Amino acid sequence: MLLLSSLFSSSSSSPHSRLLLLRLHIHLRRSISSSPPPSPSPPPLLDLPLSHPIYTIWASNTGLGKTLVSTGLAAATLLSPFPSSDSAKFIYIKPVQTGFPSDSDSAFVFRKFSQLVLRRRPSFAVSASNHVLKASASAAEAVLGFGSEGEGELRDLGAYEERRLLGEEWAAGAASELTCKTMYAWREAISPHLAVEREGGAVPDKVLLEVLGRCLRIGSEDGRGRMDVWSVVETAGGVASPGPSGTLQCDLYRPFRLPAILVGDGRLGGISGTISAYESLKLRGYDVVAIVIEDHGLVNEVPLLSYLGNRVPVLVLPPVPQDPSDNLMEWFDKSQAVFSSLKEIMLSVYSERIQRFHDMPKRAGDIFWWPFTQHKLVPEETVTVIDSRCGENFSVHKVQNNDFIAQQFDACASWWTQGPDATLQIELARDVGYAAARFGHVMFPENVYEPALECAELLLEGVGKGWASRTFFSDNGSTAIEVALKMAFRKFSLDHGIILDSTDPNTIGKFIEVKVIALKGSYHGDTLGAMEAQAPSSYTGFLQQPWYTGKGLFLDPPTIFMCDGIWKLSLPEGVQSEKLKQEELTFQSRGEFFSKSRDGSSLAGSYSSFISQQLSAYSGLRGFGHIGALIIEPVVHGSGGMHMIDPLFQRVLVNECRSRKIPVIFDEVFTGFWRLGAESASELLCCQPDIACFAKLMTGGIIPLAATLATDAVFNAFAGDSKLKALLHGHSYTAHAMGCTAAVKSIKWFKDPQTNSNITSEGRLLRELWDAELVHQISSHPAVQRVVALGTLFALELQAEGSNVGYGSLYARSLLLKLREDGVYLRPLGNVIYLMCGPCTSPETCSQLLIKLYRRLEEFKPS
Amino acid sequence: MLLLSSLFSSSSSSPHSRLLLLRLHIHLRRSISSSPPPSPSPPPLLDLPLSHPIYTIWASNTGLGKTLVSTGLAAATLLSPFPSSDSAKFIYIKPVQTGFPSDSDSAFVFRKFSQLVLRRRPSFAVSASNHVLKASASAAEAVLGFGSEGEGELRDLGAYEERRLLGEEWAAGAASELTCKTMYAWREAISPHLAVEREGGAVPDKVLLEVLGRCLRIGSEDGRGRMDVWSVVETAGGVASPGPSGTLQCDLYRPFRLPAILVGDGRLGGISGTISAYESLKLRGYDVVAIVIEDHGLVNEVPLLSYLGNRVPVLVLPPVPQDPSDNLMEWFDKSQAVFSSLKEIMLSVYSERIQRFHDMPKRAGDIFWWPFTQHKLVPEETVTVIDSRCGENFSVHKVQNNDFIAQQFDACASWWTQGPDATLQIELARDVGYAAARFGHVMFPENVYEPALECAELLLEGVGKGWASRTFFSDNGSTAIEVALKMAFRKFSLDHGIILDSTDPNTIGKFIEVKVIALKGSYHGDTLGAMEAQAPSSYTGFLQQPWYTGKGLFLDPPTIFMCDGIWKLSLPEGVQSEKLKQEELTFQSRGEFFSKSRDGSSLAGSYSSFISQQLSAYSGLRGFGHIGALIIEPVVHGSGGMHMIDPLFQRVLVNECRSRKIPVIFDEVFTGFWRLGAESASELLCCQPDIACFAKLMTGGIIPLAATLATDAVFNAFAGDSKLKALLHGHSYTAHAMGCTAAVKSIKWFKDPQTNSNITSEGRLLRELWDAELVHQISSHPAVQRVVALGTLFALELQAEGSNVGYGSLYARSLLLKLREDGVYLRPLGNVIYLMCGPCTSPETCSQLLIKLYRRLEEFKPS
Repeated sequence: MLLLSSLFSSSSSSPHSRLLLLRLHIHLRRSISSSPPPSPSPPPLLDLPLSHPIYTIWASNTGLGKTLVSTGLAAATLLSPFPSSDSAKFIYIKPVQTGFPSDSDSAFVFRKFSQLVLRRRPSFAVSASNHVLKASASAAEAVLGFGSEGEGELRDLGAYEERRLLGEEWAAGAASELTCKTMYAWREAISPHLAVEREGGAVPDKVLLEVLGRCLRIGSEDGRGRMDVWSVVETAGGVASPGPSGTLQCDLYRPFRLPAILVGDGRLGGISGTISAYESLKLRGYDVVAIVIEDHGLVNEVPLLSYLGNRVPVLVLPPVPQDPSDNLMEWFDKSQAVFSSLKEIMLSVYSERIQRFHDMPKRAGDIFWWPFTQHKLVPEETVTVIDSRCGENFSVHKVQNNDFIAQQFDACASWWTQGPDATLQIELARDVGYAAARFGHVMFPENVYEPALECAELLLEGVGKGWASRTFFSDNGSTAIEVALKMAFRKFSLDHGIILDSTDPNTIGKFIEVKVIALKGSYHGDTLGAMEAQAPSSYTGFLQQPWYTGKGLFLDPPTIFMCDGIWKLSLPEGVQSEKLKQEELTFQSRGEFFSKSRDGSSLAGSYSSFISQQLSAYSGLRGFGHIGALIIEPVVHGSGGMHMIDPLFQRVLVNECRSRKIPVIFDEVFTGFWRLGAESASELLCCQPDIACFAKLMTGGIIPLAATLATDAVFNAFAGDSKLKALLHGHSYTAHAMGCTAAVKSIKWFKDPQTNSNITSEGRLLRELWDAELVHQISSHPAVQRVVALGTLFALELQAEGSNVGYGSLYARSLLLKLREDGVYLRPLGNVIYLMCGPCTSPETCSQLLIKLYRRLEEFKPS
Repeated sequence: MLLLSSLFSSSSSSPHSRLLLLRLHIHLRRSISSSPPPSPSPPPLLDLPLSHPIYTIWASNTGLGKTLVSTGLAAATLLSPFPSSDSAKFIYIKPVQTGFPSDSDSAFVFRKFSQLVLRRRPSFAVSASNHVLKASASAAEAVLGFGSEGEGELRDLGAYEERRLLGEEWAAGAASELTCKTMYAWREAISPHLAVEREGGAVPDKVLLEVLGRCLRIGSEDGRGRMDVWSVVETAGGVASPGPSGTLQCDLYRPFRLPAILVGDGRLGGISGTISAYESLKLRGYDVVAIVIEDHGLVNEVPLLSYLGNRVPVLVLPPVPQDPSDNLMEWFDKSQAVFSSLKEIMLSVYSERIQRFHDMPKRAGDIFWWPFTQHKLVPEETVTVIDSRCGENFSVHKVQNNDFIAQQFDACASWWTQGPDATLQIELARDVGYAAARFGHVMFPENVYEPALECAELLLEGVGKGWASRTFFSDNGSTAIEVALKMAFRKFSLDHGIILDSTDPNTIGKFIEVKVIALKGSYHGDTLGAMEAQAPSSYTGFLQQPWYTGKGLFLDPPTIFMCDGIWKLSLPEGVQSEKLKQEELTFQSRGEFFSKSRDGSSLAGSYSSFISQQLSAYSGLRGFGHIGALIIEPVVHGSGGMHMIDPLFQRVLVNECRSRKIPVIFDEVFTGFWRLGAESASELLCCQPDIACFAKLMTGGIIPLAATLATDAVFNAFAGDSKLKALLHGHSYTAHAMGCTAAVKSIKWFKDPQTNSNITSEGRLLRELWDAELVHQISSHPAVQRVVALGTLFALELQAEGSNVGYGSLYARSLLLKLREDGVYLRPLGNVIYLMCGPCTSPETCSQLLIKLYRRLEEFKPS
């Protein structure tokens, strides 16, 4: 056992009449290991207990008194004259300490608290401890008095001291506890990132968060009631001061999104720093529950409250004595009422939050009208309460014995919109905040403003490269499709001499029949115009779509999927397959069937005759009907059940239409922006459209915005001398600044190898995200009928029959519920389930998802 | 002439060999008056010259060296060894100074600069002046040595000193100038808002901005080339330090949105404060061009650059000597290269901005596809470049002799979306930033998260109060309408026993004909389903809407408008009017025709028979056709030409439909959220729908979001055991967190008298915004056919004939261009023009708009 006098230089040996026992241990202890678990199993998810209040203490600058506030709160909790229970526990956590051991905030809290016990409630039974887990070599040497090997690594310091103050009340068997912990310490009194640079002892963010997570779970494990335990995490320096890795602390701790107490600045100039720090916390999604400032005679609380619109309380602490010999006991006495109020505020916010969590599912079921949801099938207990998201993960409220926040990977990509990692999400928050402040929303037609222009430029240089020259903005995929149809039909009409002049009153109300050619199983959105372009399905009956007639020639497409580790081609009826060789029907790799060399195959010929035949049959049948546009989802049909269409077939189809002067629309709402591994699926298809629609991932998945790109030839079909010849379609928020700003940031982010490590050196494709062996294995599982893995998408169809097949099926429900327990949030398309990640998600994360899925498949028993 | 030694205590009398002349004036001067102009004319718009670089110097805290940076820049500009021209001008403006006269930053710049001239370029010809415009009584007394009357008011101090340093170069006739100005000064060295509180001398923000605007125009008036003039505005304290009125400076100066130099903090803890200050500036829409920090040996620039992703340069100044007797001359010498780089950065950003302004119109015309716009009719020079918006105003780039930024009131409310004043806009920016950081976007169906729940609650308690119980979210008005139609038809089908079960494969593809009843001239959005619910019009021809058939019974409605100061009712053919009294056809006030007492009038009877007749005739005609929904825009038809429909007629129509069990849809996309003076137009109509659609103003006009509200009875029509009976309609970003957050903030803001001074004491209506007398006057103008004024809308139809009538008309063009010169941005609906403000816009602002409109009507010559 080592005695570390330099570390704990307090008045620990001062006698006190009522003190029965006072012990000071300092020994190496590893009750909480700070090493990451060695297992190759999934990284521990950052589950967070809600069984008691946990807060972070932030400050707008260094030296403003965070540690005084922590100490005051500890005293208010444990030494209250009116305790809420016989015994309470206060856990103080200092994740990062520099200037150690001469500066040690956890030692300060420990020491001051002990003094306050003796001063205020000497009869009280309380045990207080202070524990320092890890330290840099030089900080450890300063404590231990000798150095050790392993330059640059952190030492398991495990310095521990404990005091038991067993007052008269001890007899009752009750004892309160103060637990202080410093997780990591460095010797120099500088910013942690600099200390690491100079002394070594790097800590990856992930490891730091895991250790912190375990510290936060301390108080929730001993079964005390909610009100009896408190945890407080005290940060280092200001809100945006770097942590050990250089990550700003406000970003570093974001996954826990703990409610915040902000220690502001009561000095001259302090209003500004306090407000800015508050805004930095808000810009990372934190809830600031109270602001505390020291009184410097400048009544800074008045402008602060005015700025805050009285939504956040501002508490004022008495001036702190400047004399370093002052033991602060009188100051703590004077501050008692403030800390007591602060504690009450924190407790009431905590209680309200828990209450709201419990109320939300019922409220939601009572007043929401969820889309695509049969409310009768959603009992209150299955409603997911989402507290927040951080990158790819939801934080959801759960109850198992106690309340907690669980992390779930958003494997439905929130209806295929999602792309941001945690870093991009915060960058987007700042950028859309900027766009809102700079532009709000401004009128688009005949105007130009930077975000819209830059967005249009990036679209034309990216997904529209080589063919598109115009960008038309709208709000969602569905409207983008309706616009595309209008564009295509106009172009078709001009090209085929069908002129019904809308400026001529005689032709108003007259119309000819113009339809699309499309593929069965494709889906283009929910508005009527988009709906008309899809084949009849369970979505299109009278009760759903009273005006639907199905304005198209709908072809059965050939699909490709993996089964038992082999890619197989499934041909529709009508495609001549007698003469085809086996190698035209099965493939060892994706590269084979995406190869352009298939253009000369006999299958290409079969496709071409099949399409010609269908077109001739249709025009023979209908006489006056025109096919005015081709519309396809390139490569993969999304909503239709994640079917991969043979790219050769789609390429032949495009060529057949082009030769007939039928404009070609690519619906890239689902497939665009790296969803399938390339920025545009047209790259995979090796052919280009005349018109293409984008939405979903375009803004990084953060805000609605859609674009319809078109060639100059299409655009020119709307030129004329009258406004009535223009495209008279537009939505109020066309090209809104926030959406365009988010798109600009995301489009650049996804394709930049600096920000997206999945971008391959050539920059045209994402690296493979789904482990080939695992994919094979799953495709060979008896419960699995077929698998599709491409880009950010992994989909499988469960073997099923009868009513278990199709969109209405609840077949996959039990599997989904199990996977949610594993921290994977899925949403099925009937008996088709899929995992979808973002363009920046690491292959390691994807493998963890596949492993979890495989494990659950093993135990899958259809309901 | 007064000599104020305390004010300018520099080494002004030190002799120098090459000094030819040095004069020190201090006298009262009013070349720039700081009083507002007394005229009742419109408040001077905050036009901003772009003829030379103008920057604001901000700091993350007080005492970081803003004034050193200003001085260094002045020297870099005027004393460069390689001047860009013979003579240059540097204008230094300190709007707000406290601690005066002992602290005077403008005096510091003046003095140090003079010293630097003598040190660096004694042969140089330069004139330097320092001028203090206004001071509080006690600051003035400290300067003048005597007090004066008028406690609490600002004094015209006009302290002025000037030095002419006529070096050898003077012979060449060229002379450079440094102009330093302090606009307002207070004596105590505290925050300006506190100084005002203690010493008096309040300055309204508007006045301060006007004076600053005039100071900023100084350099642009003398015809120098762009590179020769620089202006720098130095703020007081930190970025969010309060100004004299208490408004935070970052908010106060926002209307100019000057590009920013941020002086950061190089000390321990300074990274955090610098980043937070940067974020506060971004959250107000400022562009930060460079960050400057003082070297404190902590290499704070490294994490700053990492945070900034190298997008903003960080410059490091040498350590500033702490010795107060140091004259800093050596420090300025050592800093010369840094200031020179800073100046180059500022110059290049400035030049690029101007260049981009000039390029944007052509780029826009080349790659945008504007909605509702015939591109051929938009020459490059008519494209408006919008640099930003602040509250109701656009800041647009203009060129007249020189480049400048002009303010234009957004009188089209950017397609009727706008509502925020400048304060709400910044609150929305922070709140949507928070929502993006906390939630990004998360999946909605079967889930609940706070912004969506709170938004739904507010909608049901507000616009849906008394009837709605469910909220369905979508993206825009058009999708909200399609959803409403699906809801209504389902309800109608159930109520009338029409069951085509979409789960029964036999009925898939079968359909019955169900249509709407609607009013001619109403407009419900641009997607096909919404379009089908409107009567044939110039929007619906084959070329525009190839699939349009017009699925409705469309009635001609009676309209009400003001003409010659009288409200007149215009009845459609078919409404029996023989027996009507004159008082049923004209009204002295709006209250008369909105009165529910008209329900018993003979006109109500005529309406009722007219509607019954039409319905019977229709069902007789079509046989199998069902009228499955009523859809109306309550009170005013927006896109149809701003026609006010007789509210009695709409009420009777609703009742007729209800008695036939036809569900009633209110399209409140345009009319909702105070647009017409009430939160919901159904309040004006005194009747309630079964379904209502909202969008546009719902989010305050900042971001797309729509909601379709419905009664429980409508919702229950979708209940069942199968998912396929649910409403299978949804968009990816359904109930996205940012949109809901913006809606929550805006809905509360608009109806709270604390934040919206237009809310009347009863809280149900906005006060009258359009001056009655002006409205009368305009309605009597010979060029005007009719006027509608209601809530935030003022519309008029110009007298016109033939092709000048209707949406395609360009009749109003000349009028619009004139009004844009007056700072009013209008967009016409053919020969109908309108002014639209926000719910918080002051009646004074509205009157200014009406006056400008009236003036331009006087000179209106149709093109």
